[in-house]
Amino acid sequence: MNIEWIAVDWGTSHLRAWAMQGETVLDQAQSDNGMARLAKSGFQTALLDVIEGWLGSAPLDVVACGMVGARQGWVEAPYSTVPSAPVPVVPVYVPNTDPRIRVFVVPGLKQDNPPDVMRGEETQIAGFLASRQNWDGVLCLPGTHTKWVQVSAGEVVSFRTFMTGELFDLLRCHSVLRHSISDGWDETAFLDAVSDTLSKPEQLAARLFGLRAMDLLQGQASGIARARLSGSLIGVELAATRAYWLGQQLAIIGADNVSQIYAKALQQQGAFVEVANATRSTLAGLAQARNLTRQTA
Amino acid sequence: MNIEWIAVDWGTSHLRAWAMQGETVLDQAQSDNGMARLAKSGFQTALLDVIEGWLGSAPLDVVACGMVGARQGWVEAPYSTVPSAPVPVVPVYVPNTDPRIRVFVVPGLKQDNPPDVMRGEETQIAGFLASRQNWDGVLCLPGTHTKWVQVSAGEVVSFRTFMTGELFDLLRCHSVLRHSISDGWDETAFLDAVSDTLSKPEQLAARLFGLRAMDLLQGQASGIARARLSGSLIGVELAATRAYWLGQQLAIIGADNVSQIYAKALQQQGAFVEVANATRSTLAGLAQARNLTRQTA
Repeated sequence: MNIEWIAVDWGTSHLRAWAMQGETVLDQAQSDNGMARLAKSGFQTALLDVIEGWLGSAPLDVVACGMVGARQGWVEAPYSTVPSAPVPVVPVYVPNTDPRIRVFVVPGLKQDNPPDVMRGEETQIAGFLASRQNWDGVLCLPGTHTKWVQVSAGEVVSFRTFMTGELFDLLRCHSVLRHSISDGWDETAFLDAVSDTLSKPEQLAARLFGLRAMDLLQGQASGIARARLSGSLIGVELAATRAYWLGQQLAIIGADNVSQIYAKALQQQGAFVEVANATRSTLAGLAQARNLTRQTA
Repeated sequence: MNIEWIAVDWGTSHLRAWAMQGETVLDQAQSDNGMARLAKSGFQTALLDVIEGWLGSAPLDVVACGMVGARQGWVEAPYSTVPSAPVPVVPVYVPNTDPRIRVFVVPGLKQDNPPDVMRGEETQIAGFLASRQNWDGVLCLPGTHTKWVQVSAGEVVSFRTFMTGELFDLLRCHSVLRHSISDGWDETAFLDAVSDTLSKPEQLAARLFGLRAMDLLQGQASGIARARLSGSLIGVELAATRAYWLGQQLAIIGADNVSQIYAKALQQQGAFVEVANATRSTLAGLAQARNLTRQTA
């Protein structure tokens, strides 16, 4: 393998790394050593655990994005403020003691009003835009904290974060609904729930308990409650983001599964949606960030 | 002590018992042996652990309400269907092996459409109405699963449950917001959040993440985030229940702290609110249920 550099997506709960030649992936590896698990002194070891096999005598650049750049991360990479290009500044160099690597962390973006932040998504946005000249429109990046991002003239103009994914996980695993939610997925139940909460978002907390009551009183086919829970939460989000997606050029960047769920909900509302691959966007964005470090080296 | 009977409020997480003479409390005791902790065979021992000191040679009636009557409880006490008096039927007798007690469980209420259930609140409603002849109006019973209940001519006409309290606990203890929420309570922040989400309930998931972002970018005085979280969730609930509280005779039955919070939010919206004591309502309702058992004995 002729590895030229290493791309790293280092979030709260996972560390994923790719051995790169230009923009071509030669190998990949990952671990559960996300930012939340590590003390400051633990990041270098956690990284080497994953990439050790790729290292030789010549030093390699490692370019990382995500929560690794948070205050509790390896090094704090100060936010850039929107409006701004998604990756407007040279990534932050991380002093370290291993001569085989030179580590850089991509800063996140912040918005002053309303206050909002992102770390990691800015890199995906940069990667998405890299292959689409003059793309103006709205990006939806679904996940634990779903981002809706307005893009114009190569810049992130504004964005808004929704805790939809985290709410879904909390309710599914830790609330009284855990007794009523099984695996499986009923598409019709999902789309009905999206429509219902889109038109009556204020009823969310009642609809949630309704899932439990319906199960107690009537029983419920497998996958109905899970799809209804997801649909109810996404419906409220779509009610809040109507100005973002209605009549706009729209793309979703996310994991395949959750992207398809959002796409179906939006298509039902008449929106035209492009779905972009999240990993490909991350790698293209990290390649851009790497170019910034080389221009100034 | 001349103990005549024993009143028990047996919920998911707690067991509270009172030694009663008529409607007068002679003594009280409690434990953490809520329904969720116990197997079917464990209820009798859990009860005796708490009330043992009150028992003599003459058998005493024990009248219990709450989740003790759920399918996973001591005995399943089948729901009565609304519209209905809050406690329309004789409590269910629980066969047991200790000759010193005769245990009864008050059934809950269910609503077929939209599906909803309550266990425990029906007893508080009966107790509240016992001292108010011809009271028509709306009751709010705030808690883990807040109930809004329409009462007319001594009957529960309809009701709706909101998971507001459970959402608050999940978000405060288990979400990313736990890093940003300290103790303390800022009244102005609470009331502002109620107003904001009452008018824009669909923005809930964005407002929640906004609490985290605001803390990261600006820091936050103690008690602000907690009050905003509570206000945001209650504001959405008040948006959904507007038809219940607007221009209606309105009373809140709940623990002092949460009742005051709901009362302030409602008063800000121009509603006139009576606050009733939850324990007193429970005991008055259990006394009513006890009378039903004696009429048929």
